[in-house]
Amino acid sequence: MSNQKKLSIIAFSGDFDKLTAVFTLATGAAAVGYEVNIFFTFWGLDAIKRKQGRSFIGSNWLTKTFGFMMGGLKVAPNSRFNFWGIGPKIFRKLMKKNNVATLEELVDAAKALDVNFYACEMAMHVLGLTKDDFIPEVKDVLGVASFLNLSEGGQTLFI
Amino acid sequence: MSNQKKLSIIAFSGDFDKLTAVFTLATGAAAVGYEVNIFFTFWGLDAIKRKQGRSFIGSNWLTKTFGFMMGGLKVAPNSRFNFWGIGPKIFRKLMKKNNVATLEELVDAAKALDVNFYACEMAMHVLGLTKDDFIPEVKDVLGVASFLNLSEGGQTLFI
Amino acid sequence: MSNQKKLSIIAFSGDFDKLTAVFTLATGAAAVGYEVNIFFTFWGLDAIKRKQGRSFIGSNWLTKTFGFMMGGLKVAPNSRFNFWGIGPKIFRKLMKKNNVATLEELVDAAKALDVNFYACEMAMHVLGLTKDDFIPEVKDVLGVASFLNLSEGGQTLFI
Repeated sequence: MSNQKKLSIIAFSGDFDKLTAVFTLATGAAAVGYEVNIFFTFWGLDAIKRKQGRSFIGSNWLTKTFGFMMGGLKVAPNSRFNFWGIGPKIFRKLMKKNNVATLEELVDAAKALDVNFYACEMAMHVLGLTKDDFIPEVKDVLGVASFLNLSEGGQTLFI
Repeated sequence: MSNQKKLSIIAFSGDFDKLTAVFTLATGAAAVGYEVNIFFTFWGLDAIKRKQGRSFIGSNWLTKTFGFMMGGLKVAPNSRFNFWGIGPKIFRKLMKKNNVATLEELVDAAKALDVNFYACEMAMHVLGLTKDDFIPEVKDVLGVASFLNLSEGGQTLFI
Repeated sequence: MSNQKKLSIIAFSGDFDKLTAVFTLATGAAAVGYEVNIFFTFWGLDAIKRKQGRSFIGSNWLTKTFGFMMGGLKVAPNSRFNFWGIGPKIFRKLMKKNNVATLEELVDAAKALDVNFYACEMAMHVLGLTKDDFIPEVKDVLGVASFLNLSEGGQTLFI
């Protein structure tokens, strides 16, 4: 186990294209035997919410508004050429057409490949989220230092 | 000293949320004994300017305009849901409410924890900035290769 | 060779300022003897297209539209203060004035310094691109796992 290669990703962005990059890297690495850890923080928390789609998650009206605006994978915008959500739709179309896994399929593959999901404690405080707001595959809620410790000895990316 | 864990961050972004991530990671790591190096470049240089707030810093009218537009931490925009500056204000509110350190508190904590601040030579040339434009905690002005050399053997992030 | 320092960059962004960061890091590291690998993916593929400038590259009308919109280095936008393309123009002016290499000069320098260029297989499928659409300096088309394997033992950045 100690010689296992390791990839750790801090998934900060909630953009459709960047989350696609996160899960493509994660599943690609896990498929060839890497230990893969993803630390979801800020906008990236969108990817692991139990309740996908726009809904008022949060502890007060301000955090609820953010919960509604973020809205999960299905409404995640592109970092470029978003055009009010048309950009990601075109990407999805191109992915299906060219037999490339869609974002949701990549997330499922990551679960199946035992990619480790972690949620950022601090961002959860700010956004008023609790562990119950996330999918059960989220292994733990961590602080920054604990995650960096997990990542030691491998490649770490901030996306 | 040689066994000390190390975290190095290339702070490229001037966005409020991304700079919050930079300083959360830096202080979190420094608090548990990591050597932490931050290399501020491009928009990230905003975080270490002596004169915070909008002001005409730079060597000619073009660089002065950039200096004015960048304007420091207080007017740093969100990378998402900025809404003409309301987004970061809401975040600040949520941070205070939920007892999470604000960006300015995180910067102060980084100084107190002896996080090493470096400024990027090339970006300073482009933006017409000199070492005097920065806070005294900036340890040195470095080129890319020197910073990468400092980062060897640790985790390096581009934010 | 085994003791050679290594820098690997996943070039995801097609933004002018971020691509400038990619090539500044790459050339800076290569100049002091690092092995440097760049993995161009998504918007970053723009930097290695044979046909720079807006043109309809791609296998069908949807991918052709993306090819046209992306348009190569000359029309790459800034991630901040783009102002309909004026931002990058001002940066170019400042770079020339202050004797800092422009983006195109940095790309040429990277080629001269034997920086290894790789193209992302998956993104090429999505965008309908083939190896022939890229400059001859692109060494290979790789999947994610192969690139991570190349990057082992060095510093890896996602930009």
